[in-house]
Amino acid sequence: MIKVTLKDGSVKEFEAGLSVYEIAKSISEGLARNACCGVVNGKVVDLREEINKDVELSICTFDSQEGKDALRHSVSHVLAYAVKRLFPETKLAIGPSIVNGFYYDFDSETSFTAADLEKLEAEMQKIIKENPSIERFTLPRNEALELMKDEPYKVELINDLPEGEVISFYKIGEFTDLCAGPHLISIKSVKAIKLIRSAGAYWKGDEKNKMLTRIYGTAFLKKADLDEHLEALEEAKKRDHNKLGRELGIFTTDEKVGQGLPLLMPKGAKIFQTLQRWIEDEEAKRGYVLTKTPFMSKNDLFKASGHWDHYKDGMFILGNEETDSEVLALRPMTCPFQFTVYNAEQHSYRDLPIRYNETSTLFRKEASGEMHGLIRVRQFTLAEGHIVCTPEQVEEEFKGVIDLIDYVMSTLGIDGDITYRFSKWDPNNTEKYINNPEAWESTQNQMRIILDHLNINYTEAEGEAAFYGPKLDIQFKNVHGKEDTIITVQIDFALAERLGMSYIDKNGEKKIPFVIHRSSIGCYERTIAMLIEKYAGAFPTWLAPVQVKVLPISDKYNDYAESVVKTLRNNGVKVESDYRAEKIGYKIREARLERTPYILVVGEKEAANSEVSVRSRKNDDEGAVKLDAFIERIVKEIENKER
Amino acid sequence: MIKVTLKDGSVKEFEAGLSVYEIAKSISEGLARNACCGVVNGKVVDLREEINKDVELSICTFDSQEGKDALRHSVSHVLAYAVKRLFPETKLAIGPSIVNGFYYDFDSETSFTAADLEKLEAEMQKIIKENPSIERFTLPRNEALELMKDEPYKVELINDLPEGEVISFYKIGEFTDLCAGPHLISIKSVKAIKLIRSAGAYWKGDEKNKMLTRIYGTAFLKKADLDEHLEALEEAKKRDHNKLGRELGIFTTDEKVGQGLPLLMPKGAKIFQTLQRWIEDEEAKRGYVLTKTPFMSKNDLFKASGHWDHYKDGMFILGNEETDSEVLALRPMTCPFQFTVYNAEQHSYRDLPIRYNETSTLFRKEASGEMHGLIRVRQFTLAEGHIVCTPEQVEEEFKGVIDLIDYVMSTLGIDGDITYRFSKWDPNNTEKYINNPEAWESTQNQMRIILDHLNINYTEAEGEAAFYGPKLDIQFKNVHGKEDTIITVQIDFALAERLGMSYIDKNGEKKIPFVIHRSSIGCYERTIAMLIEKYAGAFPTWLAPVQVKVLPISDKYNDYAESVVKTLRNNGVKVESDYRAEKIGYKIREARLERTPYILVVGEKEAANSEVSVRSRKNDDEGAVKLDAFIERIVKEIENKER
Repeated sequence: MIKVTLKDGSVKEFEAGLSVYEIAKSISEGLARNACCGVVNGKVVDLREEINKDVELSICTFDSQEGKDALRHSVSHVLAYAVKRLFPETKLAIGPSIVNGFYYDFDSETSFTAADLEKLEAEMQKIIKENPSIERFTLPRNEALELMKDEPYKVELINDLPEGEVISFYKIGEFTDLCAGPHLISIKSVKAIKLIRSAGAYWKGDEKNKMLTRIYGTAFLKKADLDEHLEALEEAKKRDHNKLGRELGIFTTDEKVGQGLPLLMPKGAKIFQTLQRWIEDEEAKRGYVLTKTPFMSKNDLFKASGHWDHYKDGMFILGNEETDSEVLALRPMTCPFQFTVYNAEQHSYRDLPIRYNETSTLFRKEASGEMHGLIRVRQFTLAEGHIVCTPEQVEEEFKGVIDLIDYVMSTLGIDGDITYRFSKWDPNNTEKYINNPEAWESTQNQMRIILDHLNINYTEAEGEAAFYGPKLDIQFKNVHGKEDTIITVQIDFALAERLGMSYIDKNGEKKIPFVIHRSSIGCYERTIAMLIEKYAGAFPTWLAPVQVKVLPISDKYNDYAESVVKTLRNNGVKVESDYRAEKIGYKIREARLERTPYILVVGEKEAANSEVSVRSRKNDDEGAVKLDAFIERIVKEIENKER
Repeated sequence: MIKVTLKDGSVKEFEAGLSVYEIAKSISEGLARNACCGVVNGKVVDLREEINKDVELSICTFDSQEGKDALRHSVSHVLAYAVKRLFPETKLAIGPSIVNGFYYDFDSETSFTAADLEKLEAEMQKIIKENPSIERFTLPRNEALELMKDEPYKVELINDLPEGEVISFYKIGEFTDLCAGPHLISIKSVKAIKLIRSAGAYWKGDEKNKMLTRIYGTAFLKKADLDEHLEALEEAKKRDHNKLGRELGIFTTDEKVGQGLPLLMPKGAKIFQTLQRWIEDEEAKRGYVLTKTPFMSKNDLFKASGHWDHYKDGMFILGNEETDSEVLALRPMTCPFQFTVYNAEQHSYRDLPIRYNETSTLFRKEASGEMHGLIRVRQFTLAEGHIVCTPEQVEEEFKGVIDLIDYVMSTLGIDGDITYRFSKWDPNNTEKYINNPEAWESTQNQMRIILDHLNINYTEAEGEAAFYGPKLDIQFKNVHGKEDTIITVQIDFALAERLGMSYIDKNGEKKIPFVIHRSSIGCYERTIAMLIEKYAGAFPTWLAPVQVKVLPISDKYNDYAESVVKTLRNNGVKVESDYRAEKIGYKIREARLERTPYILVVGEKEAANSEVSVRSRKNDDEGAVKLDAFIERIVKEIENKER
């Protein structure tokens, strides 16, 4: 007999050798029917897994992420099954579950048009109705290779598996696929599936490999849930910054300029400028001092900082170490530059903390398949900063950083969309991390204590730290449900020493300071993308690139309109006018499409009374008011950064 | 008999074959005695030159630049003569005249210490007193090589001379040197010489060659003029931005970061921020729209713009055209990026003019010997802009650009230090310039007409245009007397078409617009250098990185001092405090050294009465005033950008 501790904390005894599915069944038939997979001692397992010792066990239904993943993973196999039935020449690559769905990569003569996807979906429905059995089996390597001999990608995957690894297969009906699982016991409960689109994808994500066709899909238990999801997808598509940002004239890209190098159009540049000035001023108020350091350096600096050893592959390098007397590199991070500024002067403990900030351009060599809109780019601008302090000051400074981030996020209105992640090193990855286990443990402990003092709710993630220290990551979930890190705060135990930073303490002794690496708003480009999606382009007035649009009823009132424009501009309002010979209704519609917060219509009555007729995004037609009163109102709204 | 037209317009007749010196003598003995060289039909010549046909002739004394150059060039030979006497093993490189002096490069075991320079100076005085004869002669190449066989650098220079070139020598006393001249007839009139310093310099300015020792010196006719010059040099040295800018904590450089990549320290970054916000706001007021475009691009863009053909050697290139599928380059100019922004939308004549501005980072591959402080760098930030307009709008837009530049220069207080240069193409240099003679002529004519309409006083320079069009250069003479281009305005007839820019005119026809390339304040880094030197670090209050320093008499008044700091900061004043346990006199002296515009001392009386005791840079101790009154005064001073 073995002891199984269930999710609710209760402990039950079972015979050794029962499967997770059988345990579920012994708890309740309903649970077994709804179970998709299990989690044993923190590891996701197949329901077929036998339990032979005392364990902690969760049985996961579709309500959990693990359950959703298992179900959708099984549906991805059903897709491959359908593809093999309709397009038997197709070769199979891989087919995992992803956030909100799944995909499968195929090497096929067929390009999988929308019509093909419809046919495939029907075939999948048919398969599900057939209620095929799902079986798992394992094979020794030679037999596995023999079984998959007509599937070259599967052969490559088998050959990639390390010696001694279990090689498992799942057979759904007549369709067998190499797979680590887990999968459902039966597919019949899946009532709602949808193939969403097909797209190109390199084999193993490497642009040097063949371009395959990836089919994206999703699956739910109920049709109503699928419909709701598809509707949300439609809404997300409308808000997608990569579409809406272009339509609103915020940014553009160009074939000749290249991937991952967006150009900010006047409206985008204006939003950038507004954010940058706000952040630089707010940081100055909080005692930060600005630097402006070069975007490139000799590799000597990156060798000293460790970036050359730990980050070189992500850097743009100018010149060749073998043949050139000098090799320069574009910077992927600002740290060694601000440290050089620190080192340009001698420091005593009385100077500390020093809080450096910089609106810093950084460059990273992204793979061409990964670049996207304003989010995944090769050049970006970080609200960067480094706080140099004594060990006693670390907690207070860390607190100040969190306070600043909270202020920024809530002013932007995205404080409800963020979560915290405590990112730790991976002791087994000495390539990525500075190999000093003691320092890692002590710094991670210190960071945990600070986080707990600050009452921050966080998850933990191994192998997500910076190469020089642990991080607190601020995570943002975008309109597509994808989570991205938008800001990180790091405690650094390594770089200060590597770069020879020091201060003289109270006793006249030379000490190595601590460094907190931090941002306040993250990358400006990414923040702008986030704000486009959050507000669907209808930015709060203070952020709007055009806050007011002045429309004269006819060209008789252009002079008055122009005087309104000037008065507004002199009061710091971002204003445009539209003097085209178009109907006023047409011009109002256009200004609305541009999400302009305020449209001011002016004609005879307004001109005579120093008034403007206000149409606001919030209240639509508000009627005529005195220009002075409108200015007072909008200036206050901008100053208070109202949302 | 030949006719000689003199500088004053008079025409005199002489026998053919007289030398310039003999002609001078026939005019007056005094003129001959003072003559240093001649200018025949615009070309500088030796006084020994024989005149055999009708010419225009100027006889140049030390009062002219040509005369100064000839005299100092002769003194550089006297230096080489002295070096050969005292350090006979030394090998000679070259020794030209330069602005305000001369140099000579030597390959020597001796490092030429200050003591060596004193000895050399004494030896030069001795040589001048000997009043040696100065003779010119020419030799065929083989004999020239034989004569110089012990001087390897001279041998290289002779071998570099094209076939058929006259190979001339000058012999001063016992010292013979390869030289094209011109030189004085006699050296005895030189009453004041000075060797200033020695420095390293690569042979032919190429870092791959041997490092030689360069001795800088100067010479005047009168001791009083030399003394005045040396005093000015001392003053310039004190103001030198490369020295003072570091002392004031404005910038630093670092061996590991590399040459030409200065780091702006907090004070420098603050000045930069102040300038950038001012310029961006002023440009917005004048109808410019901001862009923010990437600092790199695929070479496809530069191929389309012509930069790849005409400017590639000055660019940083990422990747290899032979082996890489994608080659990126850092941008040396912003033009093709702002043109891409223009091309992202369709335009009608009603949209024009569009005035784009950008605070734009640019990169240029400078030779390592040429980099210097904030002036000659590999990365810099230009207040960039391009006006896209119809042909009819060019003149009005050009006028607007000049008006903006005038406003910027006069606000900075450097309007008195600038001159205008009209830079034209060189029809013989088809490598550097787009080969379209007709377009060059018509655009240059158009630009000349505009300049004349604007009543601008300008000089003309051939071969100084951009590769795509003529320029108006705004030239600034720095504290060392060296002239630099700080701003250029260009009319471009070529790039718009190359990059496919167009607009629809009134008749619905597609037209190619004109483009004016312009800056308003030039490069921010260079402007900061210029301002450091102009104001010797004592920036006008609005530009000062620290406008006010608050000093409590003792730590009893730290709280009041801190409240003064906060009130000032809330009013937008850049303020620092000094709470160190130092004597107040010491702290005042330090704040003065930092050129702080206002020092506010606070003690018991000030704290009790909400006052501050003001010490201003202008009036020194001004006594106590109410804090409110001081704030009103300084805020007004900042707003008005008073000097």
